[in-house]
Amino acid sequence: MSANMKPDIDGLIANYNDGYSLQQDFYISPDIFERDMDSLITQRWLMVDHASRIPNKGDYFLFDIGNESIIIIRESDDKVNAFFNVCRHRGSKVCLEHEGNKGLLTCPYHAWTYELDGQLRPPRLMPDGFDRSKFGLHKCHVKVFHGFIFVCLSKDTPPDFDEEYSEFGEMLNFHGFEDAKIAVKRDYPNACNWKLVVENFIECYHCAPSHAAYCSVHPEDQLTALGAGPGSGPVEALEKYQPTWDEWTERTKKLGHPIPFIDRDENSLDLAQLSRLPINDRNFESETRDGKLASKKLMGKFEVCDKGETAFVFNAISYVLAMNDFALMVRFTPRDAVNTDVQLSWLVHKDAEEGVDYDPDNVAWVWDVTIKEDKKITEDNNAGILSSRYQPGPYSTQESRVASFVRWYLKSIK
Amino acid sequence: MSANMKPDIDGLIANYNDGYSLQQDFYISPDIFERDMDSLITQRWLMVDHASRIPNKGDYFLFDIGNESIIIIRESDDKVNAFFNVCRHRGSKVCLEHEGNKGLLTCPYHAWTYELDGQLRPPRLMPDGFDRSKFGLHKCHVKVFHGFIFVCLSKDTPPDFDEEYSEFGEMLNFHGFEDAKIAVKRDYPNACNWKLVVENFIECYHCAPSHAAYCSVHPEDQLTALGAGPGSGPVEALEKYQPTWDEWTERTKKLGHPIPFIDRDENSLDLAQLSRLPINDRNFESETRDGKLASKKLMGKFEVCDKGETAFVFNAISYVLAMNDFALMVRFTPRDAVNTDVQLSWLVHKDAEEGVDYDPDNVAWVWDVTIKEDKKITEDNNAGILSSRYQPGPYSTQESRVASFVRWYLKSIK
Amino acid sequence: MSANMKPDIDGLIANYNDGYSLQQDFYISPDIFERDMDSLITQRWLMVDHASRIPNKGDYFLFDIGNESIIIIRESDDKVNAFFNVCRHRGSKVCLEHEGNKGLLTCPYHAWTYELDGQLRPPRLMPDGFDRSKFGLHKCHVKVFHGFIFVCLSKDTPPDFDEEYSEFGEMLNFHGFEDAKIAVKRDYPNACNWKLVVENFIECYHCAPSHAAYCSVHPEDQLTALGAGPGSGPVEALEKYQPTWDEWTERTKKLGHPIPFIDRDENSLDLAQLSRLPINDRNFESETRDGKLASKKLMGKFEVCDKGETAFVFNAISYVLAMNDFALMVRFTPRDAVNTDVQLSWLVHKDAEEGVDYDPDNVAWVWDVTIKEDKKITEDNNAGILSSRYQPGPYSTQESRVASFVRWYLKSIK
Repeated sequence: MSANMKPDIDGLIANYNDGYSLQQDFYISPDIFERDMDSLITQRWLMVDHASRIPNKGDYFLFDIGNESIIIIRESDDKVNAFFNVCRHRGSKVCLEHEGNKGLLTCPYHAWTYELDGQLRPPRLMPDGFDRSKFGLHKCHVKVFHGFIFVCLSKDTPPDFDEEYSEFGEMLNFHGFEDAKIAVKRDYPNACNWKLVVENFIECYHCAPSHAAYCSVHPEDQLTALGAGPGSGPVEALEKYQPTWDEWTERTKKLGHPIPFIDRDENSLDLAQLSRLPINDRNFESETRDGKLASKKLMGKFEVCDKGETAFVFNAISYVLAMNDFALMVRFTPRDAVNTDVQLSWLVHKDAEEGVDYDPDNVAWVWDVTIKEDKKITEDNNAGILSSRYQPGPYSTQESRVASFVRWYLKSIK
Repeated sequence: MSANMKPDIDGLIANYNDGYSLQQDFYISPDIFERDMDSLITQRWLMVDHASRIPNKGDYFLFDIGNESIIIIRESDDKVNAFFNVCRHRGSKVCLEHEGNKGLLTCPYHAWTYELDGQLRPPRLMPDGFDRSKFGLHKCHVKVFHGFIFVCLSKDTPPDFDEEYSEFGEMLNFHGFEDAKIAVKRDYPNACNWKLVVENFIECYHCAPSHAAYCSVHPEDQLTALGAGPGSGPVEALEKYQPTWDEWTERTKKLGHPIPFIDRDENSLDLAQLSRLPINDRNFESETRDGKLASKKLMGKFEVCDKGETAFVFNAISYVLAMNDFALMVRFTPRDAVNTDVQLSWLVHKDAEEGVDYDPDNVAWVWDVTIKEDKKITEDNNAGILSSRYQPGPYSTQESRVASFVRWYLKSIK
Repeated sequence: MSANMKPDIDGLIANYNDGYSLQQDFYISPDIFERDMDSLITQRWLMVDHASRIPNKGDYFLFDIGNESIIIIRESDDKVNAFFNVCRHRGSKVCLEHEGNKGLLTCPYHAWTYELDGQLRPPRLMPDGFDRSKFGLHKCHVKVFHGFIFVCLSKDTPPDFDEEYSEFGEMLNFHGFEDAKIAVKRDYPNACNWKLVVENFIECYHCAPSHAAYCSVHPEDQLTALGAGPGSGPVEALEKYQPTWDEWTERTKKLGHPIPFIDRDENSLDLAQLSRLPINDRNFESETRDGKLASKKLMGKFEVCDKGETAFVFNAISYVLAMNDFALMVRFTPRDAVNTDVQLSWLVHKDAEEGVDYDPDNVAWVWDVTIKEDKKITEDNNAGILSSRYQPGPYSTQESRVASFVRWYLKSIK
């Protein structure tokens, strides 16, 4: 692509070669990034954090995405609000620190002050006729669902949350996420387009060459068949692995643990997915170096460890991967055409005590190593795509989920 | 705004909502910055420094604005010249150091050499027919006025300097700026559009929330009424403060000190202003921490301290704030759409001796603190304005001067 | 130029004023840079390094130019290959390190593996019908000529190498470059357009003001007449210097050393040149501080030192300057509109032993000093050209070669 030409986005969509990676422009063009943001990212519910991050009234954190900064703040025990971090007076940021506690939201510039529900208090010295009811903070749609905070940045009515996610409720409840807390949180900025981050995350074709640690936890057969969830691997591999999976399913059912399965198609809003798998056929109880539990307190309704892992795919940039003893929140946040923030947060039972019940580095081990490897991979991928000789290449049968994602993505921005 | 779309500048001007801050594009668009430079900034006389910076023949300094670098150099006791810092041979910068002394202006590349009046000396080895009289340095309009150096970057005839500023002469003369020297000079680069810097400087609605030091020097009543000069505050506050002002005026007249008042309207070239105010009704003699004089040598014709402050507003980016004992030059220099250089220079009587008559940190105290606070404010303002939810907000009655500035600005770039 | 406007390139070409430097856009516009790359830089044979850098099978290095990364790798004793560093699967860079040795080219992402001839080995898990013969690495044209590696990035048939350079063969052979090795290699990134780097390199009008070290090695008369090769200086200076040159020519012919002369005109593909000159009439044997040989082993067929220097100008960005004992490769690599990589490599006889036969710092001395001076010069030139007042200036009679280059350049991108 010419660095200086506007891409013909609709033409590119029409000319996409199914089963191949996207054309260069999709990964580097600021115009397409803008289209991604306007037509897709801001029009979906995004998981931004766990509610335990802001337990008390006035606790807040900022969620920065694209050019937007969102204040997510607790108004009361049962109310979390989200606002665009822009003063209605002259546009200053209202909150400057990443997180904290505020009794009121006072803009540091001219001290315009907002209640925790966003309403503007009477400012000093405004001219006659000033109607403060029209100058509350701009609201961002927000929803707390089984302990997870979701926002939607749309100016319009957001998608129906329940229609999209109510089916996920039973399993989220079983994992007890309302009684979880954040054990570790780490940030990994990636210098590449958000779609490269997603595409990398939803295929395990690269696991063998790139992720030794991850491969030491999960067996090769499983990674080939299901390494990035149902539908991610070749049919033959799944057939080979199916007996192991079935055996685990049977054992787990006997324990009375639910085994839901959701697999939305490419016409769905979010390509959402929910599935459960054994971690490893070598008796691993958790996704750890030695296979032993990382936290002594099992979460939710797990009384006996079923050695399974639950994958909640809310959408392409919001995931929860849950063991019986801990869970990982995965948040990919587009910043610009070639920068994406990756944040991982590890959850444990709220009563688990650091240093007694769990060691944070042990909880975080495999994904901290893996996501650092992924960062390098995706940045090198981005560097290669800049070449005039880059052209979309064909997906392997272990990248079926990527192929689905790309088709879904192109429909979504059409 | 779309980061990738050209704004419809004339449409934006037509749709401006009077009494509100400007639309987003005005603060972030490179196209509007270019329009600002071409139609406004390069078409005005800008105060660039005090003549005492270059006392001797050949002394020079560079003034960098937008993409331009201007050499300001003393040719003789009564002649200061200004040139574009571009060799007429192949375009190299001629002067590379920020300041210094040059007997001749020799380009470091091929040694083309110019006299201090910009004329090219005969270069080596030029082909027949080369007429060096056509290859002098490009001149920049320059004017020294009561010790202050002004330049105008226009390619055409500049505005009539005397028409614009001769009225300021008497008071400048009374302050004795021709006999001043620079005591302190400091730079504060601001990562925001120049209009955010200006708008912040000409309202005191933010003083109470943001500037503790400044508020410790000036009384609240005054700051509300006149904190950013006449016309900056609400009518009621001015009425309340008027008796204090009048009392000071009467006392000052008795001392024989002039009290000029100039307040050009929104149709004027520069929205220039000249006014005098008491510093503080608590007997402050100067704008210092303890209210005592910062320099033992009063400037100009002040023999008895009148406890007043004179504000010279030459234009939106050129100010002098003068006490009886020292003065502050304020220079805002646009660099690009989102960067502005702020330079403060403090002047004292040329015979005042550092360490004996004045302590530089004491002279610089309140504005050094205040402008650092302003830097943070304007940068946070810029960050907020990037949001899709930014929309122009209404000015308070203490921001009337900003409202005037915005109207004036839009007329100026039309 | 407006930073935000697309230049009318053809109009600029048509309006070029012959004998003057180029208009501003040519030095700063990303659009013109793209035109330069597409119509000129990628359509020529570029010297990238000496073959001794990759002596063994699997040895490789990367050549980065514009947005491209080229893998240059030895397949066998007599075969060097060049490939675009882009995996045909999903576009990752295949080689991440600047240089190394590879038995196979395995992409670090999904382990797609290519033979040293670029053929793809059968990848895992590709769908039926996948034809790996269509997914070899994209080849870059490559040619090894008397020890020097040239590449051409064109998608089409490259220019006929032999037609362009076979005439250079005899002298390259006499210098024995096939039996050379790299003694020193240094990188000097220049923050300016590639044409400023070239224009600076092909005139010696700036030598006297800017290059004291260089002028201590070469006599002023010669530098004026021929400092940047035949045709670079004024006719009168050449007439004055001709007897010295002739005398050297006569002596050298008696030694049986060839004295070829090639001087292609402005309609040629590459404005190539080949000439031989005495280093200095003060009996300098080599281009060193004291005039003594820098390497004890004369190169190629030189048995007696003829005190001459051979200049091979392959094209505007590929040069070899050869003494009898060592040679300098000069490589200018455009990166973007305002960045150019400069790499110098000094060659000596392959049997010369570091510390015994030569001191690397002595070999590199004059050009290391000179190219650092040039870096500063060209960057200051670039800074000046940004001004609205920059306008093309007239070339001196010592810049005739620059004038030719500019005419040739404008024809080349037409």
